[in-house]
Amino acid sequence: MNEKKIIVIGGSAAGPKAAAKAKRVNRRADVKLFQKEPELSMATCGYPYYVGGAFDDRDMLIATPAGVKRDVNFFINVKGVEACVEIEVISIDRKNHKIVCKNLNNGGEEAYEYAKLIICSGSAPKIPPIPGINLKGITPLTRLKDADYLRKIRDEKKIKKAVVVGGGLIGLETCEALKLAGIEVTVVEMLPQILPFLEADFAKLAENYIRSKGVDIIVNDGVVEFFGENEHLKSVKLKSGKELACELAVIAIGVSPNSKLAAEAGLDIGEFNGISVNEYMQTSDSDVYAAGDCVEINHLITNRKMHAPFGDLANLEGRVAGENAALGNCVTFKGALQTGICKIFDFSAGCAGLSAIAAKKAGFTDIVTAVNASPDKPLFMKPNSLISKIIADKKTGAILGYQCIGQGDVGRQITTASLAISGKMKLDDIINLDLPYAPPFSLAIDHFIVSGHTLQNKIKGRMIGISVKEVYERVVVDKEKVFLLDMRGENEYEIMRLGVGEVLIPLGALTKRLSELPSDKNAEIICFCKVSMRGYEAAIILNDNGWKNVKVMEGGIMAWPYSREK
Amino acid sequence: MNEKKIIVIGGSAAGPKAAAKAKRVNRRADVKLFQKEPELSMATCGYPYYVGGAFDDRDMLIATPAGVKRDVNFFINVKGVEACVEIEVISIDRKNHKIVCKNLNNGGEEAYEYAKLIICSGSAPKIPPIPGINLKGITPLTRLKDADYLRKIRDEKKIKKAVVVGGGLIGLETCEALKLAGIEVTVVEMLPQILPFLEADFAKLAENYIRSKGVDIIVNDGVVEFFGENEHLKSVKLKSGKELACELAVIAIGVSPNSKLAAEAGLDIGEFNGISVNEYMQTSDSDVYAAGDCVEINHLITNRKMHAPFGDLANLEGRVAGENAALGNCVTFKGALQTGICKIFDFSAGCAGLSAIAAKKAGFTDIVTAVNASPDKPLFMKPNSLISKIIADKKTGAILGYQCIGQGDVGRQITTASLAISGKMKLDDIINLDLPYAPPFSLAIDHFIVSGHTLQNKIKGRMIGISVKEVYERVVVDKEKVFLLDMRGENEYEIMRLGVGEVLIPLGALTKRLSELPSDKNAEIICFCKVSMRGYEAAIILNDNGWKNVKVMEGGIMAWPYSREK
Repeated sequence: MNEKKIIVIGGSAAGPKAAAKAKRVNRRADVKLFQKEPELSMATCGYPYYVGGAFDDRDMLIATPAGVKRDVNFFINVKGVEACVEIEVISIDRKNHKIVCKNLNNGGEEAYEYAKLIICSGSAPKIPPIPGINLKGITPLTRLKDADYLRKIRDEKKIKKAVVVGGGLIGLETCEALKLAGIEVTVVEMLPQILPFLEADFAKLAENYIRSKGVDIIVNDGVVEFFGENEHLKSVKLKSGKELACELAVIAIGVSPNSKLAAEAGLDIGEFNGISVNEYMQTSDSDVYAAGDCVEINHLITNRKMHAPFGDLANLEGRVAGENAALGNCVTFKGALQTGICKIFDFSAGCAGLSAIAAKKAGFTDIVTAVNASPDKPLFMKPNSLISKIIADKKTGAILGYQCIGQGDVGRQITTASLAISGKMKLDDIINLDLPYAPPFSLAIDHFIVSGHTLQNKIKGRMIGISVKEVYERVVVDKEKVFLLDMRGENEYEIMRLGVGEVLIPLGALTKRLSELPSDKNAEIICFCKVSMRGYEAAIILNDNGWKNVKVMEGGIMAWPYSREK
Repeated sequence: MNEKKIIVIGGSAAGPKAAAKAKRVNRRADVKLFQKEPELSMATCGYPYYVGGAFDDRDMLIATPAGVKRDVNFFINVKGVEACVEIEVISIDRKNHKIVCKNLNNGGEEAYEYAKLIICSGSAPKIPPIPGINLKGITPLTRLKDADYLRKIRDEKKIKKAVVVGGGLIGLETCEALKLAGIEVTVVEMLPQILPFLEADFAKLAENYIRSKGVDIIVNDGVVEFFGENEHLKSVKLKSGKELACELAVIAIGVSPNSKLAAEAGLDIGEFNGISVNEYMQTSDSDVYAAGDCVEINHLITNRKMHAPFGDLANLEGRVAGENAALGNCVTFKGALQTGICKIFDFSAGCAGLSAIAAKKAGFTDIVTAVNASPDKPLFMKPNSLISKIIADKKTGAILGYQCIGQGDVGRQITTASLAISGKMKLDDIINLDLPYAPPFSLAIDHFIVSGHTLQNKIKGRMIGISVKEVYERVVVDKEKVFLLDMRGENEYEIMRLGVGEVLIPLGALTKRLSELPSDKNAEIICFCKVSMRGYEAAIILNDNGWKNVKVMEGGIMAWPYSREK
């Protein structure tokens, strides 16, 4: 019987998954995998936790859940896959169905035939081409050797100051790791905010939290030069002119698809420089598949292509590519939602689908959003405060996006949102969801469902919201006179308050103290409380008493990322 | 302007929610609420945590998330609802749109008119009519005064031994609370298993875990008599003849809808003795609504009625009833999935939708299930082992149910399942879900998605599963000779093993040791490992080498609830 020759390029996430799956579904296949690095199946997303000391056994990064090291022997004996490491594929000859490999140890070249090829060449860190970039002490954190380098720094305890260039997911995970290693860290982000998948005010809340942990964050500024002494990094210079002393700089400004090999072979490349694939993970050559960080995939809401270099997607794509390469096209990968989550100290931030800005960019002209600040659990279960924003299409009620931040774990809420979007649920479908409730796990009405209820109230015109950003800009920046009404108790006010000219009337006393409000029933009144639930109740009472321009500051003080009096 | 008179009966969960919502959406409404108990809006689900000492401030059980006590003043000042406590509604005169109330303090009776009535009369604990039931020391845990009684017992530290009658959610939460209070606890369950929403083998795993915490569990046995001394409980006698000394017995064998008032008023009552309502939460009288534990609702999969006395549903139903009573029918509550979760010590168990048995009962003749034992997080993040079962309709691939147990929090997995079922997702829709991944939160391929992959492998015929139960019954009970193959490493085998005659061949060595297998290629071979992932890989290799009757013991040793050699 003829063996079907399947070659997989790349041994990190998508590659091993594709190879193992191909062999599992077609034992007649001869599956070879070529990997440039010495290791296989590295848990790249785990590097920050190794660097930060969450665990000490490096082998855990390349082990199965049962603790078996995934090496060349493991792949041949367990998976039936011939994995060849420290071998770089240098060209693809599609006409003759061959690849040419270079042995990185002896420089020797060899050609291999394939019936089906799966390219999982991954991505490479973006390295800014600025002076001093080659100094010692500057590194990304994308390869295992980077993790080894940073872990050594942690263990040696010699380095005192570091700069993390880039305030995205990896940058912040790295920042936590370095901080836990006892290093003073400054994060420098070129954009006006960290965590670009979040709305600006949410990112600012995350920033405040991270600062509270003793990390400095500089936004709206970029590194323009690295200065060294004896070839070692000594400081970084920022666009603003500021100079930061540091012995270590970690570059985390994102990754680019490794698509050069594919491009040179004449395969179609997309607008984000990733390999173009269809839903079978098949490239423009029907005998060549591709998966993982090197490809572009569909965004399930916008139907546009995107580069989504996430470890979970790489595995899922690899699985599909492997099965199709082995059996012919039979399974599909339809796309993703840019779902993401990150832990920073004991805080987490996540999103699924589109932000309000992204939804507008994608052509949704009539969107509606609602901010929800409320706990994850009942008061008596030591709850964390979560803040989330839900984004929907006003006309259809389709859920377009969701983001949630807060102490503890926002994973449950982001998961709910991801499923709601995947399932093409409408607002009406999420307001009565039957979620698992018991006090240790959630509120009786889960935080996500409350987001739906708030959105419903806005759509039905029962609540007119105003963002903390607008209130801040009008009241604090432009010094506009607006009647701001804080509905909390006096004891709460003593502990924490905006102090921007607001009037305090506890909700329970409101009906008796209406005379303290503007006599002009058309005057704008903005109500809030800690989370603006009482702000909402107050607005209803005021409407009921004839005031016609009452707004609720969404998310209340919890959503206010600017400085407060107290 | 005429005020619309809305009367709400019941002040626990659904009632206050309905009343507050009605007033919020219709400020012209005159909303009165009658409550038999002295308290309002009690967090009933929190009682076990108060009893167990998770918190000490009893007021937290009746406070808003901001810590404000929900009393009569709160309801009138904040919600605009006139709440009347310690008043029992004794009859409903539908013809004249009146209710008659009895003041429980002075016995006085008074009648009130309504335009719309909302019945939220809740449920009552089932109390077995057996000798000795009125002894002191026997209590349910459904009212705040029960929680007070048990909390006092905890604080006084006089009682040493307790029996919990009933091994459902509340029984086990109570069992944890009493154990944490330093009391020796035995749980007595009449059914052959605890947690009846779980499949039997899963329930047995939960039982093993709870036993490991020092709690005794007796199944298949019931209390037939309580014995006392000086009116105080001294022991319980079981059907089996066993007698257990105890000074405290908590009755937790479920609740029945409080539908007597509604029945006496001639409203339709359903087969589970709950008030019949449509999707507007409207009873057979269009001016009377009902919500919460006193009603029957639709099961979203079977479309049959059920009694689902869950706190989260009561709130959601109350919200719908309140809005419709205030504005006319405009919102719906379509039903639920019997989603549930419970924490017992640091273990949790949950489900959404139907178990395999329930699916068969509901008329699904061709279902397929898959057991998945795998971690919740990567090896290097100190994972918990989760075990889950997914149930689907074989022909359509529709997800019918899911259950998951394990240490840590299974809430994320149950949430995913609930949404998948609500969204009427098919197997193909869940195998590539874009869930939030980072090592602190999940595996790269989340546990729930792995369940989908396993199910897919079974449906495609790539894996023939056999349950631990069948293996146990055939190999251990019936002493049948079956070739059982453990694919783990020798070190693993030394630490933990079934010891039922299995042969150990580490997966990596399998291809070299095929001669140790039955020479008859038609012989049945059952492969497994810790979780049966390696068992699955082994089955593929054996099939590939000509064996034709190879099965995988689903869930491996982790799913084996019976005694082991080691």
